[in-house]
Amino acid sequence: MSLNTFGHLFRVTTWGESHGPALGATVDGCPPGVPVTEEAIQHWLDRRKPGQNKYTTQRREADEVEILSGVFEGLSTGTPIQLMIRNTDQRSKDYGDIAEKFRPGHADITYWQKYGIRDYRGGGRSSARETAARVAAGGVARAALAQLAPGLTITGYMVQMGPNGINRELFDAAEIERNPFWVPDAQAAEDWASYLDGLRKSGDSVGAVIEVVASGVPAGLGAPIYGKLDTDLAAAMMSINAVKGVEIGDGMAAAALTGSQNADEISMGEAGPVYGSNHAGGILGGISTGQDVVVRFAVKPTSSILTPRKTITKSGEETEIVTKGRHDPCVGIRAVPVGEAMMACVLLDHLLLHRGQVGDRGGKIG
Amino acid sequence: MSLNTFGHLFRVTTWGESHGPALGATVDGCPPGVPVTEEAIQHWLDRRKPGQNKYTTQRREADEVEILSGVFEGLSTGTPIQLMIRNTDQRSKDYGDIAEKFRPGHADITYWQKYGIRDYRGGGRSSARETAARVAAGGVARAALAQLAPGLTITGYMVQMGPNGINRELFDAAEIERNPFWVPDAQAAEDWASYLDGLRKSGDSVGAVIEVVASGVPAGLGAPIYGKLDTDLAAAMMSINAVKGVEIGDGMAAAALTGSQNADEISMGEAGPVYGSNHAGGILGGISTGQDVVVRFAVKPTSSILTPRKTITKSGEETEIVTKGRHDPCVGIRAVPVGEAMMACVLLDHLLLHRGQVGDRGGKIG
Amino acid sequence: MSLNTFGHLFRVTTWGESHGPALGATVDGCPPGVPVTEEAIQHWLDRRKPGQNKYTTQRREADEVEILSGVFEGLSTGTPIQLMIRNTDQRSKDYGDIAEKFRPGHADITYWQKYGIRDYRGGGRSSARETAARVAAGGVARAALAQLAPGLTITGYMVQMGPNGINRELFDAAEIERNPFWVPDAQAAEDWASYLDGLRKSGDSVGAVIEVVASGVPAGLGAPIYGKLDTDLAAAMMSINAVKGVEIGDGMAAAALTGSQNADEISMGEAGPVYGSNHAGGILGGISTGQDVVVRFAVKPTSSILTPRKTITKSGEETEIVTKGRHDPCVGIRAVPVGEAMMACVLLDHLLLHRGQVGDRGGKIG
Amino acid sequence: MSLNTFGHLFRVTTWGESHGPALGATVDGCPPGVPVTEEAIQHWLDRRKPGQNKYTTQRREADEVEILSGVFEGLSTGTPIQLMIRNTDQRSKDYGDIAEKFRPGHADITYWQKYGIRDYRGGGRSSARETAARVAAGGVARAALAQLAPGLTITGYMVQMGPNGINRELFDAAEIERNPFWVPDAQAAEDWASYLDGLRKSGDSVGAVIEVVASGVPAGLGAPIYGKLDTDLAAAMMSINAVKGVEIGDGMAAAALTGSQNADEISMGEAGPVYGSNHAGGILGGISTGQDVVVRFAVKPTSSILTPRKTITKSGEETEIVTKGRHDPCVGIRAVPVGEAMMACVLLDHLLLHRGQVGDRGGKIG
Repeated sequence: MSLNTFGHLFRVTTWGESHGPALGATVDGCPPGVPVTEEAIQHWLDRRKPGQNKYTTQRREADEVEILSGVFEGLSTGTPIQLMIRNTDQRSKDYGDIAEKFRPGHADITYWQKYGIRDYRGGGRSSARETAARVAAGGVARAALAQLAPGLTITGYMVQMGPNGINRELFDAAEIERNPFWVPDAQAAEDWASYLDGLRKSGDSVGAVIEVVASGVPAGLGAPIYGKLDTDLAAAMMSINAVKGVEIGDGMAAAALTGSQNADEISMGEAGPVYGSNHAGGILGGISTGQDVVVRFAVKPTSSILTPRKTITKSGEETEIVTKGRHDPCVGIRAVPVGEAMMACVLLDHLLLHRGQVGDRGGKIG
Repeated sequence: MSLNTFGHLFRVTTWGESHGPALGATVDGCPPGVPVTEEAIQHWLDRRKPGQNKYTTQRREADEVEILSGVFEGLSTGTPIQLMIRNTDQRSKDYGDIAEKFRPGHADITYWQKYGIRDYRGGGRSSARETAARVAAGGVARAALAQLAPGLTITGYMVQMGPNGINRELFDAAEIERNPFWVPDAQAAEDWASYLDGLRKSGDSVGAVIEVVASGVPAGLGAPIYGKLDTDLAAAMMSINAVKGVEIGDGMAAAALTGSQNADEISMGEAGPVYGSNHAGGILGGISTGQDVVVRFAVKPTSSILTPRKTITKSGEETEIVTKGRHDPCVGIRAVPVGEAMMACVLLDHLLLHRGQVGDRGGKIG
Repeated sequence: MSLNTFGHLFRVTTWGESHGPALGATVDGCPPGVPVTEEAIQHWLDRRKPGQNKYTTQRREADEVEILSGVFEGLSTGTPIQLMIRNTDQRSKDYGDIAEKFRPGHADITYWQKYGIRDYRGGGRSSARETAARVAAGGVARAALAQLAPGLTITGYMVQMGPNGINRELFDAAEIERNPFWVPDAQAAEDWASYLDGLRKSGDSVGAVIEVVASGVPAGLGAPIYGKLDTDLAAAMMSINAVKGVEIGDGMAAAALTGSQNADEISMGEAGPVYGSNHAGGILGGISTGQDVVVRFAVKPTSSILTPRKTITKSGEETEIVTKGRHDPCVGIRAVPVGEAMMACVLLDHLLLHRGQVGDRGGKIG
Repeated sequence: MSLNTFGHLFRVTTWGESHGPALGATVDGCPPGVPVTEEAIQHWLDRRKPGQNKYTTQRREADEVEILSGVFEGLSTGTPIQLMIRNTDQRSKDYGDIAEKFRPGHADITYWQKYGIRDYRGGGRSSARETAARVAAGGVARAALAQLAPGLTITGYMVQMGPNGINRELFDAAEIERNPFWVPDAQAAEDWASYLDGLRKSGDSVGAVIEVVASGVPAGLGAPIYGKLDTDLAAAMMSINAVKGVEIGDGMAAAALTGSQNADEISMGEAGPVYGSNHAGGILGGISTGQDVVVRFAVKPTSSILTPRKTITKSGEETEIVTKGRHDPCVGIRAVPVGEAMMACVLLDHLLLHRGQVGDRGGKIG
């Protein structure tokens, strides 16, 4: 119910604004006995950290996490884990102009219309800075998954930047960590670099599509109807800033298939059912099949751009706006670790739910 | 938390199986004083009812709703409204084969793996019959919206069947109610009819894309982060059977745009802000702008088909399956009223939430 | 969040009015594979049923439960279980007077002030008839507990009627089922019969205190702070009609003790810790100790009495009211099975929660 | 659902341990535009602060609150408010003994049995230090109530210490702030001082009963069944450390009344209904009447005492324990501001709920 919380049993509430003193995540429901350290969480935060290359915002934030509760002698105790990240590089003076003008494509106008007050500095609560808190919480989820579902891995990467998609035939997972775009295709990485350089210089920005894949997910996670694994994944990804579309498996393309094309045929392998394809993205009826869980989401281009756009002021006057400040030309880049974090949180949550609601009563095959 | 419930203040819990005695919706949180009648709800149910033409399942269900509680002298009292629909045409004998075999692309196998027991008759809980309960609940939501947001309209229609999209230039809202596909393009309606005839005769099925548009939505509905209006819409649509993708506004296509293309410019009209375009689908930062709220979702093809597919049995033997019984060649058709119902429920919920959390403190422009 | 729902993982939503067509409970989260039959639930309903002796309302209701969903071949499937009880003996004509006048001590006035509409027939939603739905849901909870916590027993009984308490030295559990008051003291049963006869004849009513004890509760159920086992028990009991006080263990009397009197000393038995006393009522820090869980609650006297009381009408005129109709002289009697049902629901819920959140990581002693 | 959260629309999640770096409250759902300052919250924290006189623990904590989010230029923005209090006086060395031994009457043993790990320093999460976070959150709730329900006041006080009750005939609200016990009876304050001195010297502790009264509560707050105002108040009070009983209005004593004694007769005053008495404690059917809302709760004596008690160790050996360290001889004293804070949070929550679910549809009288 809390509108800043997600999850059922593993619940994450994020708090904080772009230019306030700090932001963070209140993580409730982590099982006891999980190793939770600042170092481990920092590892994930560092992957999302701004200012690491010329393709992300030049804001310099250490993004150092402090664990304030819920951990004793390096292990979670079962009580709420408070993760705090101090803001250190708030240059509020950059943002004076947007106190009065609404940036087109940005939440400025709707926050104002909804609340009648808004922290306009750096986008306040609607800033992508909030996603640092999600990544920190995702670090806790990963630590718990490492214990409860050993072998489960989560990998995110970009599959499209602007109109440019990857070549699936050149897919190389090892490439993902080697380029600033988390793209599993060396040729695309090179092409995108020059494409984005051009955009950045022209003061424009561009959208992206991110894919997140979880392997080693046990069959049986999820639940019918409103607690479907894909329902929760769709909500989790759509909750990320600037996301406008979410797909499971074949996604929107499933509409174009016939039933005979779409049905993933089943045969029997040594360890259980084996599927001839994965149009379903690892989920049937809202419940995991044991195949890879595959989610994609589209991030729209950053709305804070140097190109002048028509807009209005709080008092209703028509004007133009150019957003200076330090912005990501492709905010989709930093959405990759965020998508991974959301996947980790949702999977852990459903793993705990399944354990609570069903225990070991699942059906065996063969 | 309840996994068969959605909504925050307007909460709908659906219950019931395809071949049980009845199914329904427990609707909690309808404001008092709303006219709620069986006739009004029946109107919406009749639009979804199976067996109305040769393109939907030939199962004949009256789908008659009974109001069991929460209404006094024709008005809601503020207490839970129980809506029950008796099942009348359960031919369980048709389903003997699937007690042992899992249909590829269907929830048969995952329900078994999760629960160790499943009501295989007609798909049990995973049957699209569950959506009748949603449509009934949506009827209540529409009645409340008619009072609380007069002028708000919700319209769903198909924009793609299999690989065939509509021609947006021929868009004619009046066409929607004139053809069995709810398609706003007379030419497409004709083409799709012969296309689907062919598929149906070959024992195959096909997917679809549905678009749902809400006009007259007040600005300011929604909430930041995990209670975003688009987050809840994505979850609502993804929770519908067979949905594999959800889009808001430009959706996945937003990835291909630049920031200058994507930003909907704002000018000042007589009644407030006016937007030059609606790439955002009426939602910025999770909060409604006052523009049309536009959602699309893709429905995969029905997995119950006459084409033989390879599969396994509960005991792990490899086999083939052909699904007889009465199935929709394009289940997307009946998803149109369902998508409308979900839109109604989500909008009412956020309207109540906004009233509770913010009241009249929203900001004025001009 | 839903205001007609309780529970975290085992969630019960009740619906229905005293004089509507039916009432019931939507039970979500029952584990799969639990034997759930109408006969078993009926057993518990029959204990609460009105009209069984001269000390409860003479309304004659069969209180027959129908299972509409969630059960297949006698076993729960993990999907929502809908339990419906038809109302059959609604004599609405008895209630004409209270459409305009508010009964002192009754919810008539507050429902009106809150909602601006109320189903005044028989108290509508505020009638004790709602508790039938709780007892039905409790029957499901008991069936699940029988599997998941064999040996756990739940026993409710009256310990006080009006000013008359039981003699704890004469406590005899076998007496509970032998008298109409569920009182474990044969002498009290006799005394109370004549006391209540007198009250009934004078047109008055009286309050009561009920105690519910659960034995065989595993140590470790509950959770810190807002999910404490005692917090949820207090809410569960306070939600029962007419309850004005709830106690755990020594309850209000704990205030009068010193720390050295109150601390239940611990020694080591063969099967684990053994306590020298049970002032705590089986709960420390919100978590069960393994001792008996002991809850008491006070039920105020029925407000529908034949004694004339001063009141006002909807239009604000001062008047008097005498409530005819069929009412319990001591509604506390029928609260005994209701208290047991709530205990069963809360314990099952916390058992599932513990399994989900902690699993087998609990600490051993010795 | 989150077990460290309470509230529906105004939601408070507390976090932190007695001897960790900090503790706090994540407050979600405060309406926008409410003045929220560290000074105002500090005012309430100072009332609860330990070490202010010889009757509370000698631990010296500044209990200084930092607002980390959700407030802009002194006003709430509608986004989560993070309130952090650093721990400064953690003398962990005092607590070595209880790492192995379980204090009778304390959560030591149940936390261990539940989680298999516990932060034993100062009681960790089960310490009464957690209540500082509640008081801070209550400060936010009071600020919102001051705007939304002007004239609403909340007053808590002790009515019993150990076996000694106050004399209601000497009740003087002005006395409450004049003595260290928050007791509205000057004579009792004097007597209790010497009584508690004696106990403290003997190394023992004692329980207490606290009463909290809210005046000026609008009629119509609350909701039927599981969202009753009294249900939520009972849960809120029972969630406070060491509370064993909760009463609304006449509470447990209501059991001894007859219906004619208990029914608060209604007449018509200038501003609406007027009641001849308040046995109901301002709540009928779970909904406020407009009378004073009256809640009482019993706090058991502190279990950390100097008197030796029999207990066992983690390895199951029988032993004795004496708890040194700095403890409250009557923890009920500091529970007064905590009870007030819980009342404030629950009332604000229900005020927002009512506004969202019902709006202005409530019924008028006269």
